Amino acid sequence: MRAGGIKIGIVAPASRLDPAVAEQAIALAQSLYPDRPPELRFHPQCFLSSGHFAGDDETRARAFLEIANDPAVDALWFARGGYGSGRLAAQVLAGLTPIAARKTYLGYSDVGALMAALYTAGFTGLAHGPMPADLKREGGDVAVRRALAYLVERAPSALEPTVYTGGLTAAFNITMLSHLIGTPWQPDLQGHVLMLEDVSEHMYRIDRAIWHITANSAMRGVAGIRLGRCSAIPPNEPDFGETPEQVVRHWCAMSGIPYLGPADIGHDIDNKVVPLGRFTS
Amino acid sequence: MRAGGIKIGIVAPASRLDPAVAEQAIALAQSLYPDRPPELRFHPQCFLSSGHFAGDDETRARAFLEIANDPAVDALWFARGGYGSGRLAAQVLAGLTPIAARKTYLGYSDVGALMAALYTAGFTGLAHGPMPADLKREGGDVAVRRALAYLVERAPSALEPTVYTGGLTAAFNITMLSHLIGTPWQPDLQGHVLMLEDVSEHMYRIDRAIWHITANSAMRGVAGIRLGRCSAIPPNEPDFGETPEQVVRHWCAMSGIPYLGPADIGHDIDNKVVPLGRFTS
Repeated sequence: MRAGGIKIGIVAPASRLDPAVAEQAIALAQSLYPDRPPELRFHPQCFLSSGHFAGDDETRARAFLEIANDPAVDALWFARGGYGSGRLAAQVLAGLTPIAARKTYLGYSDVGALMAALYTAGFTGLAHGPMPADLKREGGDVAVRRALAYLVERAPSALEPTVYTGGLTAAFNITMLSHLIGTPWQPDLQGHVLMLEDVSEHMYRIDRAIWHITANSAMRGVAGIRLGRCSAIPPNEPDFGETPEQVVRHWCAMSGIPYLGPADIGHDIDNKVVPLGRFTS
Repeated sequence: MRAGGIKIGIVAPASRLDPAVAEQAIALAQSLYPDRPPELRFHPQCFLSSGHFAGDDETRARAFLEIANDPAVDALWFARGGYGSGRLAAQVLAGLTPIAARKTYLGYSDVGALMAALYTAGFTGLAHGPMPADLKREGGDVAVRRALAYLVERAPSALEPTVYTGGLTAAFNITMLSHLIGTPWQPDLQGHVLMLEDVSEHMYRIDRAIWHITANSAMRGVAGIRLGRCSAIPPNEPDFGETPEQVVRHWCAMSGIPYLGPADIGHDIDNKVVPLGRFTS
């Protein structure tokens, strides 16, 4: 580690970040670590706009690679989810240098697609956890403090409570993981405790995605599934008649995957950090 | 063929059918073929209700197998889509007899999941096309006439115009096909012209599903993709900035799959019949 605080580069491979959020995050980091504040470098790409995305694919991929391959940056923090990081997977994998493999990467939701791609490339510093955009939530500074505690101090208190040193874990958004099945970026989760969460998906969509994930033969090699929170579920027409937990228990039973109970993750301020692979302090 | 009209068994492996639609379909069939009316046998399961589904999985699978394995029935017509047919794939495949392989199967949308499963089992009589529930659409009798023209007469006029005798074709709902990728029921579409359509999906969801499908190495073996209609697309926030055709052209270009132009299929009364495999008259 350097004499100053660590350098955290921030990119937005999916949707655009509100610049006010970046300022808030920088102020929060300085107040939390007054003696050695981590330097939050928001790449200007975060604030671009191109249709649905924070700049076009080429621009977002280039920004990601600038941060990932920069030897002066210790960690790459995803600004936010939304949609679009998976679109960059092939380009990003083609442009990585060995420097990129030494960094910590933190984010969740849509950016799970890039996390998965980096995991297939052998990266060991990947983790699911809060992002700067969580400051938009009420009480969101709690989530961002947790993310910084992980990035700056590797604080065990930031971890999802069932994460244990040495064990393999993974956390993914249900819908995103479903869309990675059968692609070159499907992560090998053999022996991992897989934690799942989602937001704003109808029950029938959650059911369909869990059916999909548990039908894949490689996914049946996970050590078990834990279910995080599925929030803001729109009304099903007709009523689906089952909760997300019932759905996950059902497909675990049908596919021979152990259901291990709840996970403390979700699209909310309580979202905990889950390493993709092994936790290393 | 028998002395009387053909026997068409109807089941609902996904959502429930309104009984009034069944009566309408029977009346329409009788008026179209007064001399030798096809017998439309709506299995009572079509009208059951269990949460989201037309009866629970066990009941729906059993009804499907009763019709599929009945030597007195010539064709199995899916009553409607919705959601839930894929849930039955494993059970259905385990219960089929050789009699089931001799039938014609017609339907689209969600039931594509069972079509795909039957295709992996070597069935040759599968086709994408209108269902009884299309009578709910304004002018829907046009669609159901087309379906009956295919089921009763194998009328070439019912076919999607680019379907040619001897060539391999397939038509799927985009979202459904995405959820089949990497499962045991992913259809082998090597050399097939793949036609795609969808309804009520946001542009970002369409993009994500097309990205997913075209990222799968086996899917890259299709002869090409034709795009049917994507209708009732909810507003994207922010505006996506691309049409479904632009999205499909983009991912075809990125994945080396030829884009072959439009297909005359969709969730509407103009939806044409597309054999899964080869057209046989």
